[in-house]
Amino acid sequence: MFPLPQKECRETATCLGLASTQDMGHYCRGDVEGECSRRAELKLPELCGVGDPTAMFSSASSCLSSRGRVIKWFWDSAEEGYRTYHRDEYDEDKNPHGVVNLGISENKLCFDLLSRRLTQSDMLRVEPPLLQYPDWRGHLFLREEVAKFLSDYCKSPAPLKAENVVVLNGCASVFSALATVLCEVGEAFLIPTPYYEGITRHVYLYGNVRLAYVYLDSEVTGQDTCPFQLTVEKLETALQGARSEGVKVKGLILINPQNPLGDIYSPGELQEFLGFAKRLPDPQRTHVLWGMSKDFGMSGLHVGTLYTENQDVATAVASLCRYHGLSGLVQYQVTQLLRDRDWINCVYLPENLARLKAAHTYVSEELRALGVPFLSRGAGLFIWVDLRKYLRKATFEEERLLWRRFLDNKVLLLFGKAFECKEPGWFRVVFSDRPQRLRLGEQPPVLPLARVRWSPPVQHRRSQPSLLLLRDAEGPPGA
Amino acid sequence: MFPLPQKECRETATCLGLASTQDMGHYCRGDVEGECSRRAELKLPELCGVGDPTAMFSSASSCLSSRGRVIKWFWDSAEEGYRTYHRDEYDEDKNPHGVVNLGISENKLCFDLLSRRLTQSDMLRVEPPLLQYPDWRGHLFLREEVAKFLSDYCKSPAPLKAENVVVLNGCASVFSALATVLCEVGEAFLIPTPYYEGITRHVYLYGNVRLAYVYLDSEVTGQDTCPFQLTVEKLETALQGARSEGVKVKGLILINPQNPLGDIYSPGELQEFLGFAKRLPDPQRTHVLWGMSKDFGMSGLHVGTLYTENQDVATAVASLCRYHGLSGLVQYQVTQLLRDRDWINCVYLPENLARLKAAHTYVSEELRALGVPFLSRGAGLFIWVDLRKYLRKATFEEERLLWRRFLDNKVLLLFGKAFECKEPGWFRVVFSDRPQRLRLGEQPPVLPLARVRWSPPVQHRRSQPSLLLLRDAEGPPGA
Repeated sequence: MFPLPQKECRETATCLGLASTQDMGHYCRGDVEGECSRRAELKLPELCGVGDPTAMFSSASSCLSSRGRVIKWFWDSAEEGYRTYHRDEYDEDKNPHGVVNLGISENKLCFDLLSRRLTQSDMLRVEPPLLQYPDWRGHLFLREEVAKFLSDYCKSPAPLKAENVVVLNGCASVFSALATVLCEVGEAFLIPTPYYEGITRHVYLYGNVRLAYVYLDSEVTGQDTCPFQLTVEKLETALQGARSEGVKVKGLILINPQNPLGDIYSPGELQEFLGFAKRLPDPQRTHVLWGMSKDFGMSGLHVGTLYTENQDVATAVASLCRYHGLSGLVQYQVTQLLRDRDWINCVYLPENLARLKAAHTYVSEELRALGVPFLSRGAGLFIWVDLRKYLRKATFEEERLLWRRFLDNKVLLLFGKAFECKEPGWFRVVFSDRPQRLRLGEQPPVLPLARVRWSPPVQHRRSQPSLLLLRDAEGPPGA
Repeated sequence: MFPLPQKECRETATCLGLASTQDMGHYCRGDVEGECSRRAELKLPELCGVGDPTAMFSSASSCLSSRGRVIKWFWDSAEEGYRTYHRDEYDEDKNPHGVVNLGISENKLCFDLLSRRLTQSDMLRVEPPLLQYPDWRGHLFLREEVAKFLSDYCKSPAPLKAENVVVLNGCASVFSALATVLCEVGEAFLIPTPYYEGITRHVYLYGNVRLAYVYLDSEVTGQDTCPFQLTVEKLETALQGARSEGVKVKGLILINPQNPLGDIYSPGELQEFLGFAKRLPDPQRTHVLWGMSKDFGMSGLHVGTLYTENQDVATAVASLCRYHGLSGLVQYQVTQLLRDRDWINCVYLPENLARLKAAHTYVSEELRALGVPFLSRGAGLFIWVDLRKYLRKATFEEERLLWRRFLDNKVLLLFGKAFECKEPGWFRVVFSDRPQRLRLGEQPPVLPLARVRWSPPVQHRRSQPSLLLLRDAEGPPGA
């Protein structure tokens, strides 16, 4: 059997996202720090809703199909910050006035370790099968290694099986394929918000599947609760809400650690949520996604895996793998990496963890010193920061203005609306970057968000955008 | 401007598939050899038709969506030969009685050259951007190199531009993305048959786009015609036929070299076909696909590229690239390869060409000696073989029986029905494998298809399946 939480549901299927296997338990799951447990200024009544990914859509492209125009619009609108960053990336030597990226959830702390390992001579083997069309589920040697890796690091009571593993080019692709083979057009998955917005596109662009939101908020209602807490009651409300809109819900998406909250669901919570979906966990309707982007800091490698005991689902996803295939050379390299337990256990994991801890500690201490409230949870590469007090009004328009102010000042963040957060003013700050990026190479160290704390708005670094922001940080933007 | 044929169309768009850039012009485009120019035994009246990819569909999977069941069914049905081969691959040392693969269109002749080049030390560079989320259109360094490569080897009058290049994980993915962004659900592309059947899935599984067939046949009707010749009249007939079925045609797919025929369209022919689509070529509606699988014998690397001057199309496809991304490490390696013109021009291309010629010559001479008719065209990795005289009746059921007989006897071919050929009895034989596979390591050399020519049905190699077939080859199967 399987140590990962399993679920079942009536006519439904569940995607459980595992974004991290390393032990980060020493980050304790706490309450909201600072002021963020206070009630939102604007009380929003809705507790559920089904997303319309194209609500804001407009386009005039004549050559494209109607869905092609929607697909293009997603790129044009959603990727703005991302593309701004790529046009002007901060580099301490080559572009010291470029955009500092605290928005994209990547672990950039261990390039040195990864680069050293990936350039060892064992990585350069090129056997004929690696250059040929493969088994589209992934080469057997890789699926075997993924099964072993997950068995060991997720501590499964019985070994996981290679036949249940399908390898794709990233978890985005797994979402796309799963949504398509599990849902009809227009059906939905439940998802607690705030959530990583990319999933909207992953299930919609090809699959035309929607998300039914389970809105969580920062209010703490009792001793045993915490901000943005998911409960079975909220799931039930959202399910009924979707049904009342005529939308069929086919499954529940749970991301672990939660993104952007950084929560790890406890085993007890997971059992409850799976129980909500059906009364007994059903491995045939529980599908687990795991990717290497976060745990190994290699989002550019594009390695995503699906583990499912349902062979119909595995086969249907495999049938789509022709469009989500991973190069044979990369499959080989990843296998070598997963096989090298000495390196993983003695080099990579301890060092990665130590660096994550240091970066997290640095950023959270800076935030505390600034008086910026935030959630300090157990995992993830990000901190969920409460900037509500810096909005003139509790609106998403104001939130976006604040976001643009950051971006104009060369700091890329993601705003809460992108995560479908119901309370305007929350931002996700990614902390898993090298110290010189977080501190901009200064002494004493300065967080881009908070530079004003350490020095007056000096003139010699005018193009350091964070300065402007930080002045603003003492009052509402534009004040 | 662009040396590759360009087209335009009224409300349409065209995908031009370039499967080969190397000069293979010394293979002359000839008429059908042997008997295959005789009229088909069964005269089929239809000249057009719109494919229903799910016509044969049946499934009982309960967990999947209706489209998920169709997607799974495609895997279950279409991949049978492929999976049989992968379960029991021929290997001269480890599995000498395994399945010989003459069915999958791969160039396996240059593993030694590729392996030597891909393991040189310059391939092992790991820079941080390669491990991060990239520009989803592909890293700029690769898009620049693809533009240069296509400019040079396709002899464009003006340099092609990196901004018009999108890199995906294989041409199958380019088809999937293009079909989705250009067509509404249920619309169609025209395609001449026989054609590589994978395209059915590529445009249908995600995009729900269909193919409107332009049926070609082997009959030679005049001095200037050749078997399976495409003409504007046939395109017009098919277009009208699709319209009469209420199907909107959005484009024309041309594969160059044609698969399975091995034809290269002449510039004059291409101008005619593009003129059919609209009266003047329109770069904004001409989209060119090029992949490295065939030209570089690296299908396992999954590198496909789109070249389009239409930025709306490029952007919409880029928006789907999240699901068709190529690992940064592979993007770097491919760039190194494309950059190394000394290796390409002085090592790879001449040696690859010489080996392809030798293999083609060997297989075609064997076929001639056997009295098996076939098409000897100008390019490709395959020969289109006419086995109609070995069918008891001119039906696709008989064709499939013959195919299974090959497979049962450990020879994987593809039958004509898979290419939507209207005449039962044609098979595609891939010749681009190493001599020991084509000859099974025997002296004198023996083609698996033709072993009986060289020796009586001896007992010492009973499990060499070709023996059975070859006995059958002297009369209809089962006779």
